[in-house]
Amino acid sequence: MVIQDGCGFCRLMLSGEAARVAREEHAVAFLPLPDGSLAPGHTLVAPRCHSAGILDARPFDLARTIDLVQRVSNALADSLGATGVVVLNASGPDSGQSVAHLHVHVVPCWKDDGATFWPGERSSHVVPGPVHEAIANCVR
Amino acid sequence: MVIQDGCGFCRLMLSGEAARVAREEHAVAFLPLPDGSLAPGHTLVAPRCHSAGILDARPFDLARTIDLVQRVSNALADSLGATGVVVLNASGPDSGQSVAHLHVHVVPCWKDDGATFWPGERSSHVVPGPVHEAIANCVR
Repeated sequence: MVIQDGCGFCRLMLSGEAARVAREEHAVAFLPLPDGSLAPGHTLVAPRCHSAGILDARPFDLARTIDLVQRVSNALADSLGATGVVVLNASGPDSGQSVAHLHVHVVPCWKDDGATFWPGERSSHVVPGPVHEAIANCVR
Repeated sequence: MVIQDGCGFCRLMLSGEAARVAREEHAVAFLPLPDGSLAPGHTLVAPRCHSAGILDARPFDLARTIDLVQRVSNALADSLGATGVVVLNASGPDSGQSVAHLHVHVVPCWKDDGATFWPGERSSHVVPGPVHEAIANCVR
């Protein structure tokens, strides 16, 4: 298990301070602080082993994390009657990531929630030419 | 392999019409139509086996999908110089899901993109009382 000194989420997982939803061998689920919550039941899922985000996570830890994301999603439906979920992750500089420890947001949705969680903005970054072949050539 | 009649993404994968980034045994990656693109290089990753979303996906297909999401994320960094990524999925009614075949959006970010992809709205749905124990009791 990799624990990074100074990482708020590594400390949180060791201390068990957060409102806990699940604590498993390789991943945990907990509620964000109220200021960061987008909906009642909004849950964060994170691997216990430290990585900064999805770019550098060990595939094993990422798989265990997404498995818990799926089970939390179904628990939100079963426990709170959510009809859908939005799953969000920001990883790396310029992504809006708040804490540099991989974490996936699971936000429950209901018919009466009055919210859309789809991004309203579009990137103004310009890449010349068609991009799909450039990306395809770099998928390992 | 489960193919659902009438599913636009099942048809797309069979026909190979989309701008393809990766086509693997269990998951594919392709660009959305230009109207749906949040950034140059915005890529969709979907399992080839049909499921409506994250709630009902087979864990095996979800694992293969997130593994390709991670490799596409790194390809966006390597090919286009993205410094970060935002990963998004909407699943189920009231989530804003556009096509009822599980798909994960991978949106590259750059310092100069002028966009934030974090949701600006909050749910107005009310759940009485503390929720984390209710959710925890339903995590299977």
